Amino acid sequence: MPGSLEVIARPATSAIDVIRYTEDDFNQSQANSLAELPLTREAGRVTWININGVSDTSVLLHLQKRFGLHDLALEDAVTSHQRPKVEVYDDHVFIVLRMFSENSVHSEQLSIFLGPQFVITLQESPGDCLDPVRQRLKKGWGKIRAAPADYLAYAIVDAVIDAYFPVVDALGDEIEAVEETILADGSKNVAQRLHHLRGDLSELRRAIRPLRDALNHLMPDPHELFHERTQLYLRDCYDHTVQLIDLLDTYREMCTDLRDFHLSAVNQRMNEVMKFLTIIATIFIPLSFITGVYGMNFNTSQPGNMPELNLPFGYAIVWAVMLSVALGLIGFIWRKGWLQPTE
Amino acid sequence: MPGSLEVIARPATSAIDVIRYTEDDFNQSQANSLAELPLTREAGRVTWININGVSDTSVLLHLQKRFGLHDLALEDAVTSHQRPKVEVYDDHVFIVLRMFSENSVHSEQLSIFLGPQFVITLQESPGDCLDPVRQRLKKGWGKIRAAPADYLAYAIVDAVIDAYFPVVDALGDEIEAVEETILADGSKNVAQRLHHLRGDLSELRRAIRPLRDALNHLMPDPHELFHERTQLYLRDCYDHTVQLIDLLDTYREMCTDLRDFHLSAVNQRMNEVMKFLTIIATIFIPLSFITGVYGMNFNTSQPGNMPELNLPFGYAIVWAVMLSVALGLIGFIWRKGWLQPTE
Amino acid sequence: MPGSLEVIARPATSAIDVIRYTEDDFNQSQANSLAELPLTREAGRVTWININGVSDTSVLLHLQKRFGLHDLALEDAVTSHQRPKVEVYDDHVFIVLRMFSENSVHSEQLSIFLGPQFVITLQESPGDCLDPVRQRLKKGWGKIRAAPADYLAYAIVDAVIDAYFPVVDALGDEIEAVEETILADGSKNVAQRLHHLRGDLSELRRAIRPLRDALNHLMPDPHELFHERTQLYLRDCYDHTVQLIDLLDTYREMCTDLRDFHLSAVNQRMNEVMKFLTIIATIFIPLSFITGVYGMNFNTSQPGNMPELNLPFGYAIVWAVMLSVALGLIGFIWRKGWLQPTE
Amino acid sequence: MPGSLEVIARPATSAIDVIRYTEDDFNQSQANSLAELPLTREAGRVTWININGVSDTSVLLHLQKRFGLHDLALEDAVTSHQRPKVEVYDDHVFIVLRMFSENSVHSEQLSIFLGPQFVITLQESPGDCLDPVRQRLKKGWGKIRAAPADYLAYAIVDAVIDAYFPVVDALGDEIEAVEETILADGSKNVAQRLHHLRGDLSELRRAIRPLRDALNHLMPDPHELFHERTQLYLRDCYDHTVQLIDLLDTYREMCTDLRDFHLSAVNQRMNEVMKFLTIIATIFIPLSFITGVYGMNFNTSQPGNMPELNLPFGYAIVWAVMLSVALGLIGFIWRKGWLQPTE
Amino acid sequence: MPGSLEVIARPATSAIDVIRYTEDDFNQSQANSLAELPLTREAGRVTWININGVSDTSVLLHLQKRFGLHDLALEDAVTSHQRPKVEVYDDHVFIVLRMFSENSVHSEQLSIFLGPQFVITLQESPGDCLDPVRQRLKKGWGKIRAAPADYLAYAIVDAVIDAYFPVVDALGDEIEAVEETILADGSKNVAQRLHHLRGDLSELRRAIRPLRDALNHLMPDPHELFHERTQLYLRDCYDHTVQLIDLLDTYREMCTDLRDFHLSAVNQRMNEVMKFLTIIATIFIPLSFITGVYGMNFNTSQPGNMPELNLPFGYAIVWAVMLSVALGLIGFIWRKGWLQPTE
Repeated sequence: MPGSLEVIARPATSAIDVIRYTEDDFNQSQANSLAELPLTREAGRVTWININGVSDTSVLLHLQKRFGLHDLALEDAVTSHQRPKVEVYDDHVFIVLRMFSENSVHSEQLSIFLGPQFVITLQESPGDCLDPVRQRLKKGWGKIRAAPADYLAYAIVDAVIDAYFPVVDALGDEIEAVEETILADGSKNVAQRLHHLRGDLSELRRAIRPLRDALNHLMPDPHELFHERTQLYLRDCYDHTVQLIDLLDTYREMCTDLRDFHLSAVNQRMNEVMKFLTIIATIFIPLSFITGVYGMNFNTSQPGNMPELNLPFGYAIVWAVMLSVALGLIGFIWRKGWLQPTE
Repeated sequence: MPGSLEVIARPATSAIDVIRYTEDDFNQSQANSLAELPLTREAGRVTWININGVSDTSVLLHLQKRFGLHDLALEDAVTSHQRPKVEVYDDHVFIVLRMFSENSVHSEQLSIFLGPQFVITLQESPGDCLDPVRQRLKKGWGKIRAAPADYLAYAIVDAVIDAYFPVVDALGDEIEAVEETILADGSKNVAQRLHHLRGDLSELRRAIRPLRDALNHLMPDPHELFHERTQLYLRDCYDHTVQLIDLLDTYREMCTDLRDFHLSAVNQRMNEVMKFLTIIATIFIPLSFITGVYGMNFNTSQPGNMPELNLPFGYAIVWAVMLSVALGLIGFIWRKGWLQPTE
Repeated sequence: MPGSLEVIARPATSAIDVIRYTEDDFNQSQANSLAELPLTREAGRVTWININGVSDTSVLLHLQKRFGLHDLALEDAVTSHQRPKVEVYDDHVFIVLRMFSENSVHSEQLSIFLGPQFVITLQESPGDCLDPVRQRLKKGWGKIRAAPADYLAYAIVDAVIDAYFPVVDALGDEIEAVEETILADGSKNVAQRLHHLRGDLSELRRAIRPLRDALNHLMPDPHELFHERTQLYLRDCYDHTVQLIDLLDTYREMCTDLRDFHLSAVNQRMNEVMKFLTIIATIFIPLSFITGVYGMNFNTSQPGNMPELNLPFGYAIVWAVMLSVALGLIGFIWRKGWLQPTE
Repeated sequence: MPGSLEVIARPATSAIDVIRYTEDDFNQSQANSLAELPLTREAGRVTWININGVSDTSVLLHLQKRFGLHDLALEDAVTSHQRPKVEVYDDHVFIVLRMFSENSVHSEQLSIFLGPQFVITLQESPGDCLDPVRQRLKKGWGKIRAAPADYLAYAIVDAVIDAYFPVVDALGDEIEAVEETILADGSKNVAQRLHHLRGDLSELRRAIRPLRDALNHLMPDPHELFHERTQLYLRDCYDHTVQLIDLLDTYREMCTDLRDFHLSAVNQRMNEVMKFLTIIATIFIPLSFITGVYGMNFNTSQPGNMPELNLPFGYAIVWAVMLSVALGLIGFIWRKGWLQPTE
Repeated sequence: MPGSLEVIARPATSAIDVIRYTEDDFNQSQANSLAELPLTREAGRVTWININGVSDTSVLLHLQKRFGLHDLALEDAVTSHQRPKVEVYDDHVFIVLRMFSENSVHSEQLSIFLGPQFVITLQESPGDCLDPVRQRLKKGWGKIRAAPADYLAYAIVDAVIDAYFPVVDALGDEIEAVEETILADGSKNVAQRLHHLRGDLSELRRAIRPLRDALNHLMPDPHELFHERTQLYLRDCYDHTVQLIDLLDTYREMCTDLRDFHLSAVNQRMNEVMKFLTIIATIFIPLSFITGVYGMNFNTSQPGNMPELNLPFGYAIVWAVMLSVALGLIGFIWRKGWLQPTE
């Protein structure tokens, strides 16, 4: 049923952080249920409710009733593996994106509801990359406390996007490490490492590209919830996503190039091995045939049977023949240029 | 002739389900011909006629006359292998899409006609994924019974799209299974499995992509038959198709990556085999030549003929020569790094 | 000189069919020159002139003067290998497309001039896929005789597009046949068949894609010669071209996939062959070396020279050594997993 | 400095052709400097100045002053290797494109300035493909002399585009020749020929694609210098460039297909060679081992040492063993299907 | 925190060049801090402040206060590895691009702030490609001193773009050198050189493509800071970037083609080597088997044991047999066409 809430099993404790602030005031509290918290609406006061994992739907239903969130938005918020998107409803904006925690490799889903004076964030598990935002709110740095709720929403999205950069940079470092491995003629697990890199790049790309498109669509169309003043900042966010996609595309291309380069290096080495075998075999096979001939046991007392065996210095002559055959073959191979390395 | 009805042979029994409901009333009946059913038009009552396979055209002609369906739409509805599309006619909307039955792998064509107070669905064979919709209608869950016919049409499209997810997920599982097979260095039928996966992905993509485009075109342009209220729900449908296409694109890319990875793994193993042969052959071919030399039957009583054979400890000397040749070659191969695995 | 008519050598006889009809009247005649035919203009009467190959330009110049055709359009009509297109002139529409005759594999160029009350078609040689249209006109089936000239033009384009389907289906069958060949491990001419298939697909695509684009551009912009009523039918034509392009793209992708699959199958088989050689050679090369050693003719009466040869059961010992070497190598190969098929 | 004129060394003689005409009058003269020519402006008289190579800038500066050409346009005209483009300035249009002379393989740059009553063309060296235009002007064929200057500019562009067709057709012929070579199983220089073909195709594409785009941008936007009447003719030019690009894309695709096809043909032949070696080696290596065994010199007088050698008919038995080994191997290879050609 | 300035360690000395000019006056000075310089605003006087590396933020903060630069623009200016872009703020335009110094291979970031009467440029280190601009300003060449600040900004961007051409040309020369190497059948480091070329091309492309897009977006929308007169010059800049991208795309394609060509050349050479081995081995393996047979030590005194050995001229017969086997094999190989070079 569209708009219904089926919460997938989540961590039992669903801690709720509530931050409320005006330009001059800052107030932070924590609770296990929303009912505990008096959330009276006050002019100029912004409320940020952060839910760390949803264990039961009652919190959500409470939220929905209290802030008038749309069924479909709430359904998306509790369903994991959503595609990042920005959806504009009548009286609130719903943003869903993937977040990398600062000290973790795995991404989780972060849903943001932005209303006239509130921001609600919903993450899959505790621990996030939003501490710089909380810090700025607490210390009153910059204009964040003086600005309306949309600036807070922007600050959260910006913090999430900033947390992509170290992840992308780590992939860039790994790509460089692989390149150095190939150039150093070592080839430990190159194929496998490139395969995993491509997978990671493609996953990141899937997280960032829809976000970029959503930000792009959001920008030219100032919504009553995104004031014109915030537009410049959103453009900055958008620029960052463009830069990330640029980097990911470059890295993907580098992976393809490295795979081709690695393949050609492996091939070259294999070719060298094969050429060595070829040359050894090509020289010795005719020589072995000659020794085979004079190893035959024809009865030399019969006429015409292997008179060479009884020649004085026949052995030396055979050696001379064999040497000239070998030299001829080496000369032929040399002239053909097969001894030069192909790369 | 455009607009003519040539029905391809279908199951003999073409059962017709008719569901009629208002907000407070629900009524379901079944018949073999439309003539049996009194279909009086009543304000606020929505009629859903579901036809399970068309055996003769009389039913269709009856429908066409009764509901004013357009020739071309009806022609498309009875022609299988239509490309999914949404077509807006003067007084009805025609939707055609591919449907996966809940307990079947094969897809069939589902045609939907949406008119002012009616929805007509036409499927190729009995059995579909629409039971949740019927259940919600029967039980009166949610707002489905209170909403006009366009919400029913949306609910049907949504149910069909939801039924894609398990099919796509199954492909994802198969891809992961193939990846594990490759990583475990087994390679049972990998090429063939990837080939079939690509075929399936491409077929699903062909089913979903035109649907996505059609939904996208339908949305910004509110039709008198698709009320503004339903637009939000259509956007949700559209989002799901976007997500499906995203998944399919990712899977397709993963297939390509896996094929490359598999190829490189097969190549590596082959290279290892070839290198082993090369090394064995390279070492023993010169040694065999030496044994061949001393297997020649030159008459040692003639001067200069193989005096080595009569040397005391000549045999040991030959062994020493052979060992040093072997060690020299092994050393050469070692220094060249040919014994290290290339990957 | 632009707009000049240089007729490439065509069949000597350029038969001209003229069909004239109103809703109640149908009249068909045939001539070798237009001058023979009285072509008075009558309200409600549509004239369809079909020219089967142009042998001299006088017919064309007559047509041009009589119907006011544009120089450039006429020049394109007589130049073969035109790219399909729709061009709107002041008082007529010029359509050029490629037509597959019903009983022929080769396509020819069909030019259509649509004016207020006339349609002129110009084909390269007699024999076409337009007989169903003629039949409908003659029998008065459907609304074709009641409709103005643009419906006739649509009907002709529709008949031409319908004639693409069997051609495309035949390619689909051939692709399936190739796939079955590969799966059955046979590989008779697979590369060559795929090469020809790709060529055919690409040729068809070149015929259909510009037509699709032209129809798409024609649709949203109702021309005074294409009435709004005909627009729905044009949309149907457009849908068919989209479906054809879809099919062709799918087939092209399938060809690429099949080529990769075939290549990997051929590779696998080659790898199997090479591995068999490798294993045989790897086992027997060391054994042959051993036999070579004991085939040397060292004088055993000299001290230290091959005492093994005189050992009782030396022969059995050598066999034991050789068997253990062989078993060791087989064991090594077995443990390396080289005996398992790689695919 | 933008807009400055640095003339690259050009042929010493920079002949200047001047053609002046009205509907009834035609006048052609030639000079080495513009100063020699009285260029009075007359209503209805069009002046076409063609400069064959620029040796000194004085001619250009004279032109610039006389006709008011823009700095940037003139700078582009004297700089070779410009990307084809159409630039609209306040009182003149500047067109730059690549021209193939009728009897030459190399292209040169042709710059066209179109003003109210003049056309100035500037080519790198004498000899061009514009003689048909001059002929039509001289003889007064068609409407060229009656039309304003923009029709002359169109006629020049059209003549340049027409001269592309033989060049592109020659590439098509070469591609067909390469295909026939591959199908005939010959493979003389196929890789190199395809490599050069791709280079040529890509160069032509670089010449035509920007021209197509420029014409496309010029068309929908009637400029006061390009009258509406000429628009239809420009559309024809545009169509020709589209057709050329279509051809080039097809040829490029055919080159890729041919390369794949050729590679697979070369591979197949190599595989056949390798399989033949494999089969020969696989059969004879075990047989040689057997002969090696009975070539060992164990002292048969010691117990257990090679009693086979003294068996009556031992030789025949060995032959029987060897034959059965060979037949067994051949049978194995046969059953594996390795003797069938893989393609 | 968005908009904050964290300056990465830069060269200690951050020299500041200030150029101030009107049409008749030119004045250049240098300082280590802005405070030293009296920067009074005068009608018609343009100020160009060029900062060579930023060592402390005080200069920037001074600039920001003095010229009203936006936080986000300033943050981007001091962060290296920005994606080239043009951003329009309320009262200034911010341009960031990559600059190649005239005598250096490495690129650095150049940020340009364009305000009503000022241009501020910020580069990472001293030394740039802007000397021609300075020269033109100093000497009063052209119209640069008479034009407003936007022309100066254009002149700087143009100089930066002009400095790309030698870099791109050098890559083109390297590509040609690689092609010649391959055609001359040498293959020294081809794979590695192509790999590095692709990397360089891709880096340049990343520098130029966003710039092209930014210029394209800037053009159609005349900003109060970019006068209409400058638009023509911006179009020229844009054309240059289009030409550069065109070149880079061509070079990238050529790299791909060269890699394929090189691979096929390496393959061909390897195939030749393998075929030579195959032919040598194929001929000698059966011959060696024959010599092996007659090297067996069967006791010829036993009946049926190797009577051939005692035949008169048996040796000659064996040679005849061996020769006919060899000739037969050579004939077979010849007929199969395996001796012809495959390429």
